[in-house]
Amino acid sequence: MVSASKSTQANAPIRLGMVGGGQGAFIGGVHRIAARIDGHYDLVAGALSSDPVRALASAKELGLDRSYGSFEEMAKAEAARDDGIEAVSIVTPNHMHFPAVKAFLKAGIHVICDKPMTSTLADAKKLVKLVADSGRLFVLTHNYTGYPMVRQAREMVAKGVLGDIRLVHAEYPQDWLTEAIEKTGAKQAVWRTDPNQSGAGGAIGDIGTHAYNLACFVSGLEAHSLSADLDSFVAGRRVDDNAHVMLRFKAKGKAHPAKGMIWASQVAPGNENALKLRVYGMKGGLEWSQEDPNYLWFTPFGEPKRLITRGGAGSGPSAARMTRVPPGHPEGYLEGFANIYCEAAAAIRALRRKGGRIAKDVVFPTVHDGLAGLEFIDGCVRSSKKNAAWIKL
Amino acid sequence: MVSASKSTQANAPIRLGMVGGGQGAFIGGVHRIAARIDGHYDLVAGALSSDPVRALASAKELGLDRSYGSFEEMAKAEAARDDGIEAVSIVTPNHMHFPAVKAFLKAGIHVICDKPMTSTLADAKKLVKLVADSGRLFVLTHNYTGYPMVRQAREMVAKGVLGDIRLVHAEYPQDWLTEAIEKTGAKQAVWRTDPNQSGAGGAIGDIGTHAYNLACFVSGLEAHSLSADLDSFVAGRRVDDNAHVMLRFKAKGKAHPAKGMIWASQVAPGNENALKLRVYGMKGGLEWSQEDPNYLWFTPFGEPKRLITRGGAGSGPSAARMTRVPPGHPEGYLEGFANIYCEAAAAIRALRRKGGRIAKDVVFPTVHDGLAGLEFIDGCVRSSKKNAAWIKL
Amino acid sequence: MVSASKSTQANAPIRLGMVGGGQGAFIGGVHRIAARIDGHYDLVAGALSSDPVRALASAKELGLDRSYGSFEEMAKAEAARDDGIEAVSIVTPNHMHFPAVKAFLKAGIHVICDKPMTSTLADAKKLVKLVADSGRLFVLTHNYTGYPMVRQAREMVAKGVLGDIRLVHAEYPQDWLTEAIEKTGAKQAVWRTDPNQSGAGGAIGDIGTHAYNLACFVSGLEAHSLSADLDSFVAGRRVDDNAHVMLRFKAKGKAHPAKGMIWASQVAPGNENALKLRVYGMKGGLEWSQEDPNYLWFTPFGEPKRLITRGGAGSGPSAARMTRVPPGHPEGYLEGFANIYCEAAAAIRALRRKGGRIAKDVVFPTVHDGLAGLEFIDGCVRSSKKNAAWIKL
Amino acid sequence: MVSASKSTQANAPIRLGMVGGGQGAFIGGVHRIAARIDGHYDLVAGALSSDPVRALASAKELGLDRSYGSFEEMAKAEAARDDGIEAVSIVTPNHMHFPAVKAFLKAGIHVICDKPMTSTLADAKKLVKLVADSGRLFVLTHNYTGYPMVRQAREMVAKGVLGDIRLVHAEYPQDWLTEAIEKTGAKQAVWRTDPNQSGAGGAIGDIGTHAYNLACFVSGLEAHSLSADLDSFVAGRRVDDNAHVMLRFKAKGKAHPAKGMIWASQVAPGNENALKLRVYGMKGGLEWSQEDPNYLWFTPFGEPKRLITRGGAGSGPSAARMTRVPPGHPEGYLEGFANIYCEAAAAIRALRRKGGRIAKDVVFPTVHDGLAGLEFIDGCVRSSKKNAAWIKL
Repeated sequence: MVSASKSTQANAPIRLGMVGGGQGAFIGGVHRIAARIDGHYDLVAGALSSDPVRALASAKELGLDRSYGSFEEMAKAEAARDDGIEAVSIVTPNHMHFPAVKAFLKAGIHVICDKPMTSTLADAKKLVKLVADSGRLFVLTHNYTGYPMVRQAREMVAKGVLGDIRLVHAEYPQDWLTEAIEKTGAKQAVWRTDPNQSGAGGAIGDIGTHAYNLACFVSGLEAHSLSADLDSFVAGRRVDDNAHVMLRFKAKGKAHPAKGMIWASQVAPGNENALKLRVYGMKGGLEWSQEDPNYLWFTPFGEPKRLITRGGAGSGPSAARMTRVPPGHPEGYLEGFANIYCEAAAAIRALRRKGGRIAKDVVFPTVHDGLAGLEFIDGCVRSSKKNAAWIKL
Repeated sequence: MVSASKSTQANAPIRLGMVGGGQGAFIGGVHRIAARIDGHYDLVAGALSSDPVRALASAKELGLDRSYGSFEEMAKAEAARDDGIEAVSIVTPNHMHFPAVKAFLKAGIHVICDKPMTSTLADAKKLVKLVADSGRLFVLTHNYTGYPMVRQAREMVAKGVLGDIRLVHAEYPQDWLTEAIEKTGAKQAVWRTDPNQSGAGGAIGDIGTHAYNLACFVSGLEAHSLSADLDSFVAGRRVDDNAHVMLRFKAKGKAHPAKGMIWASQVAPGNENALKLRVYGMKGGLEWSQEDPNYLWFTPFGEPKRLITRGGAGSGPSAARMTRVPPGHPEGYLEGFANIYCEAAAAIRALRRKGGRIAKDVVFPTVHDGLAGLEFIDGCVRSSKKNAAWIKL
Repeated sequence: MVSASKSTQANAPIRLGMVGGGQGAFIGGVHRIAARIDGHYDLVAGALSSDPVRALASAKELGLDRSYGSFEEMAKAEAARDDGIEAVSIVTPNHMHFPAVKAFLKAGIHVICDKPMTSTLADAKKLVKLVADSGRLFVLTHNYTGYPMVRQAREMVAKGVLGDIRLVHAEYPQDWLTEAIEKTGAKQAVWRTDPNQSGAGGAIGDIGTHAYNLACFVSGLEAHSLSADLDSFVAGRRVDDNAHVMLRFKAKGKAHPAKGMIWASQVAPGNENALKLRVYGMKGGLEWSQEDPNYLWFTPFGEPKRLITRGGAGSGPSAARMTRVPPGHPEGYLEGFANIYCEAAAAIRALRRKGGRIAKDVVFPTVHDGLAGLEFIDGCVRSSKKNAAWIKL
Repeated sequence: MVSASKSTQANAPIRLGMVGGGQGAFIGGVHRIAARIDGHYDLVAGALSSDPVRALASAKELGLDRSYGSFEEMAKAEAARDDGIEAVSIVTPNHMHFPAVKAFLKAGIHVICDKPMTSTLADAKKLVKLVADSGRLFVLTHNYTGYPMVRQAREMVAKGVLGDIRLVHAEYPQDWLTEAIEKTGAKQAVWRTDPNQSGAGGAIGDIGTHAYNLACFVSGLEAHSLSADLDSFVAGRRVDDNAHVMLRFKAKGKAHPAKGMIWASQVAPGNENALKLRVYGMKGGLEWSQEDPNYLWFTPFGEPKRLITRGGAGSGPSAARMTRVPPGHPEGYLEGFANIYCEAAAAIRALRRKGGRIAKDVVFPTVHDGLAGLEFIDGCVRSSKKNAAWIKL
C-alpha cells in the first residue's frame, strides 16, 4: 500500500470530512455517530447538502467550521491544507456517490462511502479502476458486516465448523413503503423510489444488496448466477418494492455448489428492518437476525441448538474484536456501523506510516464488494425483465 | 350429497378401518390417535401392512379383531358386513394410495387419505373423477390446515382484514436427511427417497406440498405459475432434498396479482419441522409457525404487532371450533391432526341421514386440494428439469 | 403392592368411572381426553354432577350407560359388578375430593384425583392413611409433571448435570380473575373464589400448588420453610388472588441449602397460563415454560445456552417415554395430562396380576405429593396471616 | 436553580472530567463512550486511578492532557481554571464515590456519579444535603432508566394506561460469580465482593438496586417496606450473591397498595444481564427485558398482547426523545447509558445561562434516587439479618 499523505501522530484522531448528510437526511447522522463513538475521528469539514443554504445551516448546527458549497470545492480545498481531511464520508443519494468518490480519490483522500456504491454498474466498474489507481482506501459501509455476531458466523464458516455450505438464505423485509408515501413528499421515500437518484433497483438496491452482501460475506461464497422476479406492488411506483431471487453459487473445490434465496421487500407489514441470514452446511447451521443482533443460533448437526451471545461463551476472536461491553448488555446498529469505521480507522492509521501495512484481521467491505453489489442489482433487474431468466454474474 | 350407506345412530362413533400403519410406520400411529382423541371413531378393521405376517402382528398389538391380508380383501369384506366400516384411513407409502383409495370408494366406503394424494399427477386426475362418481367423501389429511390458528389466519384473510394479498411466503425446512441415512436402512428414509414409492418429488412432495397447501388454504389464492430449482445435496440421493420455488398467483378481481416463495428442505441442520407461513396484504401481515402453533402474529399496517393466542382475545369462531382447552394451555400436532378427523366425522355423520348436508363451517382438504398438490409437485419437477422455467399450473 | 381386584386381560383397556365433570365443568373434559388419547381406558360409568338431572344429561351426552346420582351409590354399585370400574377419576370442586376418594378407596377401586388433593390439611393427612390402608393406587393429576421436558429436567437434575442445586424459581401467573367475574356468575370463578369449595387458598391453592409441586418434582428437593405474602387485589374477593412466597429448602447432604421463590397470580394481565420453572445449580441452569412445553433451555455454566427439544438431540429416556411424535411436531397440555393417565395405566395394569409390581420408571404424583401440596397451601395461608412469618413445613 | 459557573456558549460541548476508570476498569470506558456518542461532552481531565502511575498511563492512552494524581487535586485545580471542567464523572469503586462527589460539589462542579451512590446509608444522607447546598447538579447513572422503552413504559403508567398498579416484579440474574473467581484475582470480582469497597450489599447493591430503581422509576411507586432473604452460595464469599425480596409499596390515593418481588443473583447459570421488569395494573400489563431492550410488551386486559418497538407504532414522545435510529435498527446498552448523559447535558446547558431552567421533559436519576437505593440496600441487609423481618423504608 501507499504511504500516509500527511504527517500525523500515529494514534491521533483522523480528520474526517462529509459529503451529504445535511438536515432532513437519515444516514448522515448515523455515519457521524459511528465516526464519533470510539473517538477515532474528528469531523472537521463538510459539503453537507447540494443546496448551499442548507449545507451552511447544517454545518452550523453541527459546529463545523469548514463548510463547502460543493464536494468539488471541498476536495480541492482540503487537499491543499496542511490540516486537511484524511478521509471523507460520502452519504448522498446513490447517484451522487460516483462523482464525489472520484473527486476525493483524485485529491488523495481516503473514502468511506455508503452503499450501493454507485447507481449504475458502469460507474461501479470505473470505480474499481479509480480506486486501484489512487492508492487510497475505499471503504463501503455495508454496515451489517460490522455486527460482532456476523463476524462470528463468518469465522465459523471459514473454520469449517459448518462443513461444506449447501444453502444460504437471506431476507430483508420492511414495510415502510406499503403505501405510496413517495407521493406525500416524504424525503426518504421520494429519492429511494426515483430511479434517477437510486438507480434501476428499488428494494433490490436499497436493501436487497445488504442481504446479498451479507450472504456472501458470511458464507465466503461467490454467486454464479441468479433468477429474479421483481415487482412493484404499489400502483405508480417506478422501482421495485419487492424482490424474489433464487441464487446459485460457484462451487468451492469439489463440493456440490451451494444455492440460496433472497427476499427483499418494502411492502411486508409487520417488518421493520428484519434482515435475517441462515446458512446451512453439511455439519451444521447458523441463523442470525439483525433486529436481535447479539444472538447467533448455531446447531451442530445432531446436537441441540446453541445460542451464542456477543462476547459470551462460544464467541471467538472475530466477535471479540468488535465488542465494547460484556455479554448481556446489548450492542446495536450504531455499534455495528461504528465497527466499520473502526476498521477503516485501523487501516487509515496503518497507512499514515510510510510502508505501513493493514493488519490481517482488519476487515471491511471494499470496492470489489461494491462492484459485486452493482452486478447483483443489475443482474436482478435484467433477469426480472426477461421473466426471471438465469443471469450469470 | 349422497345418503348414508348404513343405518347407524346419528351420533354413534364411526366405524373406521385402516390400510397401512403397521409396526415401524410413523404416520399410522398419528392417524389412530387423531381418530381416538375426540371419541368420534372406533377403529375396528385393518390391513396394516403389505406383509401379511406384520399385518397380523400389528393388528394383534392394537387389539383389532378384523385383520386383513390385503386392502382389496378388506374393502370387499367390510362392504359386505352389516357392521362394516363406514370410513377407512389410507396411510401407506404414497404409491399405494391410489389403488387403495379406489378400492374403498368403489366399495362405497368414505376415505381419509394421507398426503400426497397419489404418486403421479395422472392418478390424481383419475381420482378426482372416481371421487365424484362414488358419492363418497374423500378427506385428505393436509393436517396443518387443522391447526386452530391456521383457521384463524384463513378467516382473517377471508374477511379482508389484510386487504388485497400481495405476498405469501411458506417454508418447511427439516434436517433429518442431512446425511445419507437411507443407506443405513432407516425405514422412513428409504421409502421417502425412493421415487418408486414416494413419486418424482422428494422434499417437494413430502413437505413442499404441505407448505404449498398451507399457502393456498390461508390466502385463498390459486397459483398461476411457478419456477422451481430442486436439488439433491446428498450424493447418490435419487430425489430432491431441497427445493426453491418462486410462485405467481392468479389475480383476484382487479387486484395486482400476488407472488410468493416456497422453500422446502430436508438438509437444513437445526430445523425439525419448521413449517412457517407469512402472508402480507395491503392492510396487514400475518405470521405463523408450526412449531409454536398456538400463536398467530398479526400486524395491522401502522400499528403494533399483536400476538393472537389460540382461544385468547382476538381469536375468532374458526379457531374456537377447533379448540379443546383454554388459552395458555398449548395444543399441538396431534390435536391439529385430530381436527381434520373431527371435520371428517361431522361430514360422515351428516351423510348418515338420507339427504343429510354437511354444515358450511365444516372444512377439510378434498380431492381437489390433492390434485392441486400433485400439479404443484409435477410442476416443480418439470420446471426444475428445464432450468427453473416458468410452468403454468 | 396388592393383587388385582378383578380378573382382566393384562393389556385390556381399564374400566374407568368419573365423579364430577358434567356439563359446564372444565377439567372433567380434560381428564376424559387424557384417558382416551392413548386407548388405555374405557369410560363406562359416572356420577357426573351433584345435581342428578345434570348428571343424567351429562352421561347421556357422553354416551355413558351407567350414570349414578351420587358417588356413594356409584362406588357401591360398581364394586359389586363383575365388570365394575377398576379406577375412578375424581374431578369435582376441591371440597368434594376427600369424601369421594374415601368412598372409592374403601370400595377397593383405584383413584385418579385432581389437585389440590383435599380442601383442608386435616383431610389430606387422613387421606395418606386411607390410601396406605386401602392397598389401592392414588394418582394425583399434578399434570405438569407429565410434560416430557419436565421429565427431562428432572432426569438432568437427578443425574447431577446441574451440580448441587442452589435456586429454584417457579411462577404461575394468569389474568382471568383481574376483574370480579365471580360476581357475574361465571361457574369456574364462583367456586374457585369460594373458600367453602376451594379451601382456604385461592390462587395459592389453584395454581401456586402446581408451581410448588413442579419445583419439588424437578429439583428433587423438599421445602424446609416458607414466608408468604398473599393478597386479594380485587375488592370483595374472599380468597387470595396473588401470592408471593420465599422458600428455603432442606439441605441435601453437605450442600448449602437451596432457596426459591414462588409467584402465583390471577390478576396479571397478559398472562394466560404462564407457568415457568427455573432451576440453577453449581454447574448449570434450566428453564422451562408451560406455554412452550416442547423446549427446555439448558446452560452448562461457561458454555452457550442450549435448546433441548422434546425428542430431539440431548433429550433422554425420561422424555422419550412420554413422547408420541417426532421433534418439531409439538405436543401440548393434553398429551402432558395424558402422560399421567399412561403412568396410572401402567401401574394399574401391573397390579392386575397377583403380586404384580409397578416398573421403576413409572412415575406419578402420589398422596404424599398431595399432602405436601396441602402443607404448602396451609403454610402459605398461615404465614401470610402472621405478616409473612417463616413457617416450617 | 443556580446560574452557570463559567461563561460558555450555550451549545458548546461540556468540558468533562473523570475520576476512576483507568486501565482494567469496566464502567469508566462505558461512561466515556456514553459521553462521546452524541457529541455533548469533551473529556479534558482525569484522575483515572488511585494508583498515580496507572492514572498517568491511562490518561496518556486516552490522549488526556490534564491528568491528576488524586481527585482532591483535580477538583481544586479545575475549579481554578478558566477552562476548567464543568462536570465530572465519578466511576470509582463504590466506597470512593462519597469523598469524590463531595470534593467536586464543593468546587462548584456538576457531578455525574455511578451507582450505588455511596457505600453506606449514612453517607447517602449526607450527600442529599451536600447536593442541596451546592446548587450543582447531581446525576446518578442508573442507566437502565435511559432505555427508550423504559421511558415508554413509565409514560404509559403515568398516563394511566395500566390503571391502578397492583404488581411490580423486577429481577436481575447474572451468572458471572457462580464460582469463586474473586479468589483468582479477577479485578471486577475482587472489589465487588469486598464489603470495604462495595458496601454491605453484594448482588443486592450491585444489581438489586438497578432492579429496584427500575421498578420505582417505571411504576411511579414508592416502597413502603420490604422483607429480604440474602444468601452467599459460594463458600467464603463475604457479601450476598443472591437476594430474594418481597416488597410492599405505599398506597397511591385510595388504591389497594401494590406489591412486588425482586430477585437479584450472580449465581444463576445461563443469565448474563437478564434484568427484567413486569408491571401489572387493573387495566393492563407491561413486560420489558434489558437484553432485548427495543421491545416493550403491552397487554391491555382482554385484548391481544402487543409488541411496541422503539420508535415504532404505539411508541410515544418519551421514547422518541431517546431514539437515534429508525425502528428495527436496534439501539443498546451504550445508547441507553448515553441517554442519561444527554439528559445531564441538557440540564447542564440550561444552567449555563443565568436563571436558566431545566426543561420539564428532561429526566434523570437524582440524589434522591441514590438515597432510595441505599435505603433499599440497607433495608435488605438488615431484614436478612433478622430472618427476613419486614423493614419499613
